[in-house]
Amino acid sequence: MKTDGFYSFVPDIRIMNQNIKDQIQAINQYIDTLAYGEHPNELYEPLRYIMSLGGKRLRPLLCLLSYQLFQKDWERILPQATSIEVFHNFTLMHDDIMDDAPLRRGKPTVHEKWNDSTAILSGDVMLVKAYDLLLDGLSIDPAQTIRRFNKCAAEVCEGQQIDMNFESDDNVDIDNYIEMIRLKTAVLLGYSLELGALLAQADQNTSDQLRQFGELIGIGFQLKDDLLDVYADQGKFGKQAGGDIIANKKTFLLLTALQLADDNQRITLNEWVQKTEFNAEEKVNQVTAIYDEMGIRELTLKKMNEYFDKGLSLLQQISASDTVKQNIIEFTQYLIDRDK
Amino acid sequence: MKTDGFYSFVPDIRIMNQNIKDQIQAINQYIDTLAYGEHPNELYEPLRYIMSLGGKRLRPLLCLLSYQLFQKDWERILPQATSIEVFHNFTLMHDDIMDDAPLRRGKPTVHEKWNDSTAILSGDVMLVKAYDLLLDGLSIDPAQTIRRFNKCAAEVCEGQQIDMNFESDDNVDIDNYIEMIRLKTAVLLGYSLELGALLAQADQNTSDQLRQFGELIGIGFQLKDDLLDVYADQGKFGKQAGGDIIANKKTFLLLTALQLADDNQRITLNEWVQKTEFNAEEKVNQVTAIYDEMGIRELTLKKMNEYFDKGLSLLQQISASDTVKQNIIEFTQYLIDRDK
Repeated sequence: MKTDGFYSFVPDIRIMNQNIKDQIQAINQYIDTLAYGEHPNELYEPLRYIMSLGGKRLRPLLCLLSYQLFQKDWERILPQATSIEVFHNFTLMHDDIMDDAPLRRGKPTVHEKWNDSTAILSGDVMLVKAYDLLLDGLSIDPAQTIRRFNKCAAEVCEGQQIDMNFESDDNVDIDNYIEMIRLKTAVLLGYSLELGALLAQADQNTSDQLRQFGELIGIGFQLKDDLLDVYADQGKFGKQAGGDIIANKKTFLLLTALQLADDNQRITLNEWVQKTEFNAEEKVNQVTAIYDEMGIRELTLKKMNEYFDKGLSLLQQISASDTVKQNIIEFTQYLIDRDK
Repeated sequence: MKTDGFYSFVPDIRIMNQNIKDQIQAINQYIDTLAYGEHPNELYEPLRYIMSLGGKRLRPLLCLLSYQLFQKDWERILPQATSIEVFHNFTLMHDDIMDDAPLRRGKPTVHEKWNDSTAILSGDVMLVKAYDLLLDGLSIDPAQTIRRFNKCAAEVCEGQQIDMNFESDDNVDIDNYIEMIRLKTAVLLGYSLELGALLAQADQNTSDQLRQFGELIGIGFQLKDDLLDVYADQGKFGKQAGGDIIANKKTFLLLTALQLADDNQRITLNEWVQKTEFNAEEKVNQVTAIYDEMGIRELTLKKMNEYFDKGLSLLQQISASDTVKQNIIEFTQYLIDRDK
């Protein structure tokens, strides 16, 4: 599914500062120490496999950064930060079955390498292991922490179901879409930041603000992803140009185009959406031409910037370490500027 | 899958005492009050659907009974007892996908009524909701309680994976089989009883004994299930006679027969196992004839009784309300004697 937000995003680690690099390395080292379980191997090997595929551990990183707004000793919350990454990879393992995706980060998906049943069951046990990690050396109220995680986890499932519903729903509007990507992608970023703050004993109001910050940049990030799918330099982006267009994915771009189209444009767009046989390149070129005609790229950038700006201005209001805040701002800027 | 222990078992409520009936009714009423979530309906409706299919709520009942060995006010632990039932139904929803089962308790399975993706995702959110319920009004240490549940949940997944592995493993022995049904079926019964005891503030040793009691009767119960699959009065049992034989399921009966067979018997058994085309009734009759010749029915009954006896003698050692103990013994006797 292409509304996967950070799912497929691997930032260029070279441009990050040393501090952030160190933390990503610590997360990876911590992940390498985790056994999860031993027997049967068929259950736990897929878990270790998907966790070893990499990605740049953005969610645990955001959790560590948020913690450091208030406290220094981030090493002690590595289990909690990593529990988010385990949960995230659980959703990937199950989403890949639902999407029948052959590849994840350039490697065979679990259901391809093993089979659907193994991917279902290994995913299930991953969710259980995420709860275990969340409790490891936990220094704050466990019941409240688990409740907070439960809420986030249920919302991610809701977002995925709504996304699936969209495929056969002809009445999706832009607000529906934003709410879907909020649930499917952004709430987990919000939770990552909120958890970091709660673990650092920040007050509820501040933790709430950080959660909102995470949700806002999460929505902005997904809009950037939608944009890159159509307008990225394909050499850098490394995905099929216009995959969303080919699949009639109801992205912000398509929904905005359909909303603002004049009669001719709407007829042409709907024709392309309804065609069951077509030349993919032609479809991408024609639909992109309509987007260009309508200024959809600029409208999406504007919307994306609104979310990032709202997020950053929220972040500015939080009383916390300015150095770390600067780190988070730089990282957010990096997400805005990325070209792949 | 036929090693489903209690999965398909619906006790005849008429023969139970009023006290137990009242508790089952309270569990069902409590389940009826649960909304789980609202939007999107496609996510939560399958959850409500599978929870409404009935079954006699044996696991929550065992939890309530165990609690009552030490405390009277069982109504207050209905959320925790029900969390076990939600977890159990989550495993059913996912197992049914893996087994491609068309029916569950005589009704279409979730993946049949909706589709695989919905069954995966609704199952996922069920697991999250089981954690939520476990925390509802919880009066004991939440971190320890969740840890205990995590261990049980991971073991149930392990059991399911081992069961799937057995399909292509020609070296399964009886000990492997007992360990598989322990994980897949019995540990959840053990956990139900242990949780009831812990909620009633019983000491760890007593809670452990109740867990062991649950595991022992859980294994005995599964052996009875294996037996009924071949030897039940089919009018009462309501399943296809010899379904396990037809599917070459490596049950206690088949594994024992293969272990004790003379050369001729082994050759005949293996021939039936390897045949890809056969008359189902003939296969069931021929394999059953070998079982009869070898006294497999009696050997299975003996093994089953060993587990029930061990369990009941453990139960006798526990210092707790004799009335409730008697209730649990009667209920266990009912599980031993059932003919369907």
